[in-house]
Amino acid sequence: MEKNYYSLKDFELSLKENAIERANDFQKYINQLNGFGCKSYWIASHTGIGATMNIEGYDKPVISFIANDYLGMSQREETIYAGIEALKKYGTGACAAQVIGGYLDIHKQLEEEIASFVGQEDAILFSSGFGANAGILRALLGKNDIALTDPFIHTSTLAGLHGTNIKRIGHNDLEYLEMVLKEVKDQYETKLVIIDGVYSQDGDLSALPGIIALCKKYDAMLMVDDAHGIGVMGANGRGTAEHFDCLGQIDIITGTFSKSFGCVGGFAAASKKLIQYLRFYADSNVFSAAPTPQVTASVLKALELIKTRPEIRQKLWDNTNYLRKELMERGFDIGKSVSPIFPIMVRDNKKVYQIAKMLQERGIFTIAIVYPAVRTKEARLRVSILSTHEKEHLDCLVSALEEINQTIPIKKQ
Amino acid sequence: MEKNYYSLKDFELSLKENAIERANDFQKYINQLNGFGCKSYWIASHTGIGATMNIEGYDKPVISFIANDYLGMSQREETIYAGIEALKKYGTGACAAQVIGGYLDIHKQLEEEIASFVGQEDAILFSSGFGANAGILRALLGKNDIALTDPFIHTSTLAGLHGTNIKRIGHNDLEYLEMVLKEVKDQYETKLVIIDGVYSQDGDLSALPGIIALCKKYDAMLMVDDAHGIGVMGANGRGTAEHFDCLGQIDIITGTFSKSFGCVGGFAAASKKLIQYLRFYADSNVFSAAPTPQVTASVLKALELIKTRPEIRQKLWDNTNYLRKELMERGFDIGKSVSPIFPIMVRDNKKVYQIAKMLQERGIFTIAIVYPAVRTKEARLRVSILSTHEKEHLDCLVSALEEINQTIPIKKQ
Repeated sequence: MEKNYYSLKDFELSLKENAIERANDFQKYINQLNGFGCKSYWIASHTGIGATMNIEGYDKPVISFIANDYLGMSQREETIYAGIEALKKYGTGACAAQVIGGYLDIHKQLEEEIASFVGQEDAILFSSGFGANAGILRALLGKNDIALTDPFIHTSTLAGLHGTNIKRIGHNDLEYLEMVLKEVKDQYETKLVIIDGVYSQDGDLSALPGIIALCKKYDAMLMVDDAHGIGVMGANGRGTAEHFDCLGQIDIITGTFSKSFGCVGGFAAASKKLIQYLRFYADSNVFSAAPTPQVTASVLKALELIKTRPEIRQKLWDNTNYLRKELMERGFDIGKSVSPIFPIMVRDNKKVYQIAKMLQERGIFTIAIVYPAVRTKEARLRVSILSTHEKEHLDCLVSALEEINQTIPIKKQ
Repeated sequence: MEKNYYSLKDFELSLKENAIERANDFQKYINQLNGFGCKSYWIASHTGIGATMNIEGYDKPVISFIANDYLGMSQREETIYAGIEALKKYGTGACAAQVIGGYLDIHKQLEEEIASFVGQEDAILFSSGFGANAGILRALLGKNDIALTDPFIHTSTLAGLHGTNIKRIGHNDLEYLEMVLKEVKDQYETKLVIIDGVYSQDGDLSALPGIIALCKKYDAMLMVDDAHGIGVMGANGRGTAEHFDCLGQIDIITGTFSKSFGCVGGFAAASKKLIQYLRFYADSNVFSAAPTPQVTASVLKALELIKTRPEIRQKLWDNTNYLRKELMERGFDIGKSVSPIFPIMVRDNKKVYQIAKMLQERGIFTIAIVYPAVRTKEARLRVSILSTHEKEHLDCLVSALEEINQTIPIKKQ
């Protein structure tokens, strides 16, 4: 296969090659990336993640828009101190599955606190957020069930749906959802609608209230992956459900601890009975070692700060609103974003890499999102805003984009 | 459904019930467990995992045989200190996928060191060991490929095989494996034999040299999950491959950091080209936040200790050999175990819970393994030995078993 432009799609499983041949062939993609001269992937950092970072190949710190640590929790003295205390008390890991020995009293405390925070009865913790979505779905949905999925849900969710039926419901399309719900009504045991609270690529919100109403009307369950909503959305940071005044009306909420909580891992929160069931059937929990003491304690501290220090979230929103205003007034296309996730639409795979490279030359790191992650027409830079960004970081980004726009038009035509 | 004895099988997906009904029905299993009076699952601990633990409902520390922290790394001053330093330097989490910003210089260092330790060219890290097995298999095997699996491989592996073909190869049965390899030879693109180095339920070893020879003969790839072998087996703790003098002869080695390394997470190690491929296609890596700085630094320290302090591993083997001798001389049935994992065969589901309860009353915690985890005829207690167990802990276990054997015969008849 020799092509003018390679995408990740070209080296996927569907090809008639074995794994070794495919891996060898993939060198073409790597060569092409190197040819772009844009260091986009697998760049090692010498410092923790944050508004600025020291990365390999750069003498000076770069301004970074790649982290999901929205509230800057990973670098706070309080969360680091809580982690240190837990390390000293419980050790470096829990070294067993929670079901058989790896369950610490602080895991139990976090289950209770996170469940109550997102308006659910109980919760179960996972050492990876990917595992939370994939594991609970493998436990809940079989051949007699169906998942009704928004096209933009996270890959981790899809990893849990191999053993069940799937039907797309469109994106925030209530009319189409109702049609699908009518169609599947009596054909399956469990009908589970799966959406995100805040979508990770476009930064737009789910049409949650309307979806809840339809799920009730047609006796379907609703699962909301609120990875990007918890800590960010709602008057108290309780997530997309709070934002829409729908707390307690969702069957399953999942989330991750690698975003607003500044660590790693995830959880599922639901009714007591459903969580009790998952404690024995969610494979990625039952057959996985527990979250570390450090993560558990640091997340507990982050949750406390989210509850008691609203000014941290306010700073995030001040930054978000400032950048949105600046970009929109200048004519950049940020799609449907209403959250700290900004797609800066470029709509051309190669141009995205060129612009990313020119930003890097100015000491600014963003993420290039191209086909097949999004359609070619929707290729974009992805910018994540943190509460720890300063106004000058945002100004730098805006003026760099203005400058680059002179050479490569980015703004809406 | 009303039965005399419920197993986890009774509430699995295959039933004609929706998820909510199944979760409600599962209360029968919980009631039965409570009836046994044996606190086997989801018991919270007030201390870290180890040879002794303070668990809820007990005034005094109990002796614990439930952890996989074989070398006691989770509680060592050196690994805890390394974790604290990393927390201070890098923060509580890396808060992005490694591919796009969450990749720290210590991740890179650990990749290189672990790859070299297990005799491979390169490695990729995952925030959960479950994710390592499942994610790489989803990336490597599709509809034109086949996984040839030992029946006793880990659940995480099976979670990665939903999109491909699977054929069982028997357990360490070289003759049958050769027959299967002949049969599938020209029918599939990738033929991947998947085995464990050390099997987690029986504590026996794979027939590695013979399997390697057959894979070469029939042009199949070999993946060895050495979660329970690395740090334990081989003159230098380099795992089952070192034990059998087969370092460098395996296509893919996977492992976890929650066992001999005392933390959480996992890795896959293979050729440079294959790892380069996985860096873009292993979903549970690409779409998952990176391992935490603490885990990465503590694992690096544990690896250094494994290399430089052989007396820690020697103590594990002294304990293992002592307990094996004691149990065998007294006529207990420990199956095929040749590792620190001891099944104490009881061969009756209810009796396993009774014996576990009687051990608990004597302040000793083991794991009850019953159907469907193993066949009813193979129900057993599972005992994991640590280098941090003292001789008196092992003596306590043996004399408690002797005592219980007076009431409930456990020994071989």
